[in-house]
Amino acid sequence: MSKGASAREFGEVLMLAREQSGDSSLVDIVDQDGRATIVIGSLGHSIDPGVFENLPGVESVEGADLYKLARSEKGLNGKYPAGRIVEIPFAGARIGSEQFVVMAGPCAVEDEATLFEIARRAKAAGAKILRGGAFKPRTSPYCFQGLGEQGLELLSKVRDQVGIGVVTEAMEPSLVKAVSEVADIIQVGSRNMQNFPLLRAVGKQPKPVLLKRGMSATLEEWLAAAEYILAEGNPNVILCERGIRTFSRHSRHTLDLGVVPALKERSSLPVIVDPSHATGRSSRVPAMARAAIAAGADGLIVEIHTNPSVALSDGFQMLSLDEFDSLMGELGSIGSVIGKTI
Amino acid sequence: MSKGASAREFGEVLMLAREQSGDSSLVDIVDQDGRATIVIGSLGHSIDPGVFENLPGVESVEGADLYKLARSEKGLNGKYPAGRIVEIPFAGARIGSEQFVVMAGPCAVEDEATLFEIARRAKAAGAKILRGGAFKPRTSPYCFQGLGEQGLELLSKVRDQVGIGVVTEAMEPSLVKAVSEVADIIQVGSRNMQNFPLLRAVGKQPKPVLLKRGMSATLEEWLAAAEYILAEGNPNVILCERGIRTFSRHSRHTLDLGVVPALKERSSLPVIVDPSHATGRSSRVPAMARAAIAAGADGLIVEIHTNPSVALSDGFQMLSLDEFDSLMGELGSIGSVIGKTI
Amino acid sequence: MSKGASAREFGEVLMLAREQSGDSSLVDIVDQDGRATIVIGSLGHSIDPGVFENLPGVESVEGADLYKLARSEKGLNGKYPAGRIVEIPFAGARIGSEQFVVMAGPCAVEDEATLFEIARRAKAAGAKILRGGAFKPRTSPYCFQGLGEQGLELLSKVRDQVGIGVVTEAMEPSLVKAVSEVADIIQVGSRNMQNFPLLRAVGKQPKPVLLKRGMSATLEEWLAAAEYILAEGNPNVILCERGIRTFSRHSRHTLDLGVVPALKERSSLPVIVDPSHATGRSSRVPAMARAAIAAGADGLIVEIHTNPSVALSDGFQMLSLDEFDSLMGELGSIGSVIGKTI
Amino acid sequence: MSKGASAREFGEVLMLAREQSGDSSLVDIVDQDGRATIVIGSLGHSIDPGVFENLPGVESVEGADLYKLARSEKGLNGKYPAGRIVEIPFAGARIGSEQFVVMAGPCAVEDEATLFEIARRAKAAGAKILRGGAFKPRTSPYCFQGLGEQGLELLSKVRDQVGIGVVTEAMEPSLVKAVSEVADIIQVGSRNMQNFPLLRAVGKQPKPVLLKRGMSATLEEWLAAAEYILAEGNPNVILCERGIRTFSRHSRHTLDLGVVPALKERSSLPVIVDPSHATGRSSRVPAMARAAIAAGADGLIVEIHTNPSVALSDGFQMLSLDEFDSLMGELGSIGSVIGKTI
Repeated sequence: MSKGASAREFGEVLMLAREQSGDSSLVDIVDQDGRATIVIGSLGHSIDPGVFENLPGVESVEGADLYKLARSEKGLNGKYPAGRIVEIPFAGARIGSEQFVVMAGPCAVEDEATLFEIARRAKAAGAKILRGGAFKPRTSPYCFQGLGEQGLELLSKVRDQVGIGVVTEAMEPSLVKAVSEVADIIQVGSRNMQNFPLLRAVGKQPKPVLLKRGMSATLEEWLAAAEYILAEGNPNVILCERGIRTFSRHSRHTLDLGVVPALKERSSLPVIVDPSHATGRSSRVPAMARAAIAAGADGLIVEIHTNPSVALSDGFQMLSLDEFDSLMGELGSIGSVIGKTI
Repeated sequence: MSKGASAREFGEVLMLAREQSGDSSLVDIVDQDGRATIVIGSLGHSIDPGVFENLPGVESVEGADLYKLARSEKGLNGKYPAGRIVEIPFAGARIGSEQFVVMAGPCAVEDEATLFEIARRAKAAGAKILRGGAFKPRTSPYCFQGLGEQGLELLSKVRDQVGIGVVTEAMEPSLVKAVSEVADIIQVGSRNMQNFPLLRAVGKQPKPVLLKRGMSATLEEWLAAAEYILAEGNPNVILCERGIRTFSRHSRHTLDLGVVPALKERSSLPVIVDPSHATGRSSRVPAMARAAIAAGADGLIVEIHTNPSVALSDGFQMLSLDEFDSLMGELGSIGSVIGKTI
Repeated sequence: MSKGASAREFGEVLMLAREQSGDSSLVDIVDQDGRATIVIGSLGHSIDPGVFENLPGVESVEGADLYKLARSEKGLNGKYPAGRIVEIPFAGARIGSEQFVVMAGPCAVEDEATLFEIARRAKAAGAKILRGGAFKPRTSPYCFQGLGEQGLELLSKVRDQVGIGVVTEAMEPSLVKAVSEVADIIQVGSRNMQNFPLLRAVGKQPKPVLLKRGMSATLEEWLAAAEYILAEGNPNVILCERGIRTFSRHSRHTLDLGVVPALKERSSLPVIVDPSHATGRSSRVPAMARAAIAAGADGLIVEIHTNPSVALSDGFQMLSLDEFDSLMGELGSIGSVIGKTI
Repeated sequence: MSKGASAREFGEVLMLAREQSGDSSLVDIVDQDGRATIVIGSLGHSIDPGVFENLPGVESVEGADLYKLARSEKGLNGKYPAGRIVEIPFAGARIGSEQFVVMAGPCAVEDEATLFEIARRAKAAGAKILRGGAFKPRTSPYCFQGLGEQGLELLSKVRDQVGIGVVTEAMEPSLVKAVSEVADIIQVGSRNMQNFPLLRAVGKQPKPVLLKRGMSATLEEWLAAAEYILAEGNPNVILCERGIRTFSRHSRHTLDLGVVPALKERSSLPVIVDPSHATGRSSRVPAMARAAIAAGADGLIVEIHTNPSVALSDGFQMLSLDEFDSLMGELGSIGSVIGKTI
């Protein structure tokens, strides 16, 4: 604080400090020869020092701007910024624009014929991006771990022949290069949201990154994770809400759609929603997909399959191709009245 | 169990019951003339009665029915039932039909002039029901507890003169009669979702009941609470999702919109959504209200005020009357493409 | 604030405001002819105005001292107060003293012979209080609801003949009198922690009250609920941690033992622990009972039964009488080295 | 499934699998020469393979084994196994034996003099292992990330000169070798509990691994993560409970001590407790440390510092060296009456 700071100016900084931090015990005032230094810590979520910069009475701001690149330029109390637009020219996708971008495909890449059929139908229905796991993070070492590099090759072949973008997951720094050569978007999964070496690795390559929210990540932790990518020079981060861990058991996770408008206030990054993993049941996917577009999301990532009941993993949550066609029609209708195109 | 069942056979059924159910408090043994009936409930996940059928000592198995009146007649794997429709003729409301019923008003009833203005504007914008607390459950004994009976009188006066239905809360059995005489719908609040004497009391009177979900209630506990009302003979229960307690701090509670399609699979009762208490911030209410209609909710209960910044409670989450007009327009547009009228 | 309040004085009040409140959006400064009024609200937990009173620059403090009676006299940053001691002379119990008070008995009162045997064995093992539900809150209306008044009569008879105190639950205001005539301690259950009319009713009668924590109650909400009782003139409130709702499924609820030292910092009320409901499994009760005494709890409420496998409810979580004897021995040993007697 | 199993028979097994398991991602189908094997996992509640035995089309049923190496040999209903003992001869530590092993040290390695003082005092007080982060996972890229390899060198020097074991964290596969050369125990942090490539990497080297529980990991996910290490051939895994994410805000995380007896029933791996990260406040660390030993934990990892108020990170949760001495005395006393030595 400057030496002549008034009580009111002082108070406003402290009030804002309180807004930015959830745990009281970490705010301190250090008095050094008449010039007060306010030290603000954070337990459990990040603080954005940038919001203090233009306050009257503030002389300088130092330290941990936990997500200065991820945050909204106009800040917490300003109008919402025009969102950053992540462009995928090959796919004709502009994520964060008035276009509602749908990514669809199987949970895991299986055989070539199935993948081609899914890709063609997805594209025909309006999806810009094909999703499909080549490397699968699995809870147990004894579960199917994906086709690996062979899966990447299949994705590459389908991408070229069908003309649809591809998003697929990278699970460790040493595999980022291989995934980056095939994918239009690299996915960082929920379990890796705070795998900081991986975040740095995807930040150092040029492809956009889809950053899924950790199962128990706060909004601030999520944006600080995005910051690891942005800070390495990759500005194209897409956030993806996919459900959080709560006591509630009617679905696999609790889809936190309220985080969509909350993110729009805090950050300029685009945000999409994954209704498949959250609900865990295909019967509920359309309802949550419609809710996502209505809540202001910039897109959707959804699991579809030619024959969900025989899929190698997650069959219960995949839509059939006909169900997907029907959903795309519904999304188009809602989009038409709220200013979004599919 | 058959009459001659041994302790060991008995024990094996109980062990399996325990394995099948996460909550042991729902295992009961009822002794009827020497033949024991084991009642097993399930909180949070499904039980398959079939697994008990071949155990030694088991005579017969019936489907678990903690909420036989609240549940869907066609069950988990059938098609969804036509929903029950709760009718409020005075208000022209048919909750659970193709009509999306909006309930709006201040958090607490304050003065007469304000209440009249809110009621007239709410009705003009399309709301069928005026909300407003006369008796307010407050965390501390030192907070404003509502105007009490004087509040009920104001609500009655506004109802008659403006011609709008009224929903207001009853907090204890001894006040149900007084509330019932004024209100078109009696609200049971989140904190009272498992106040069983209160549930029985509202089940014994004729007005429809709005049953808010407890802050940490599972879907099954919620339906079992509705069952207390239904079992007393009142078939008109409306469920209301209002946010659950989770680790997430970006909003006051986490609005669990995924419970809407989950309820539609399990129950024939109508379900509405309260975006005001969940988000705790008026800036995010419209997004979650749009998401609610898109997710298939049957209505909305939303806080509005002539001047949110001077309201006696919860000013931060109330929409202004102009914001409410705007929201109703958006809901009408979305409704028009998904088959709902406002 | 007084007119001449300095920036530093101002800042300290605001910092403390932040400590007391979890949600920023509710701190406001109103400037009235040079005298600033700081308005502090609270979302989700209570604020204690008393802590502001002696700060320099503070002229006066008004309003919602959400738990001024429940809180520690020496406050958040002082040394911990000597705890309030709740005395039950009939039972020889001094809860909150160096005596670790054990309450034990069946989940629900069943038949007379069983109850007598349990009471005698509990007393012989060192329990001061017999627990047993006459009125049982049950999730579904179709479950066993307790023996009601007949259960109270049995408890009264056992109390007189065995010479052991009794704790039992009251579920609604109209039954408080009947319970109060029999019980040494009236229990308010988790589902009723915010049943404010019930809290007022037990506050108006003379018997001590055991207030169980709600399944998703914060520490502040719990103390504010205690305040409803204290504010009616009954100073004898005992808090009981019994597990909270979390995502974790290895036990029925998650026993939050960390709340014991947290309460000791904030409040002078005694706190006991219920390991039976939290774990839901008798095999884990001894471990959590030992942990409770080691963490500084003032007592324990534990379910025991002559024959857990045939109990009418909650058999899985009850200790046998022999297991209880063994547990009391372990608690005595730990108590002897940490200054607690059984 | 038998070779001729029909789609319908197949479907019924899968439906039942879905009913039995809350998490569908753990249902897998492995096709082996025309005979399909359905692998069903369970997160959060038990599955009874027996219920599948009599279904048509089912050839044989084997016990689910997501963590066959991590689980107790005698299983859920048997007596608890003698625990596996992880030996660190250099440190004189036998984790999982009657010895209660304390690991203590600063959050992060800072300067040499401080580290030496802490190590000497820790050893003198009875700690067998020095903890200290060289590589620190931090929420934001702008926070202090640890001294890195220089930190490892300091740890190595202190280890040799003081004669105390060392535990420190490895955050990515490429650094496992460097950490393994210095540390007696390699820590895998909470954020990396499901970083499967890292788990495999620490499974392939010979040093014991301390596997911290993820912030929202179920018991089953935790044991399945341990299984990744065990399956690579490293049998020396130590589990560490450090608090989970819940709605509760009185402490940083909610320490789930109930998981200690739950793990003892399910697994033969030793389990220790970290009270420092869970409580986030040094004033509450002793209470939870005492509770941990009383609950049956095999050890403790606790943060201590010569001068907590000037530490570079987490000063609020570190004990001073004098406080640590006092705590060790208390643990020794409790240990003496429950059969544990320090």
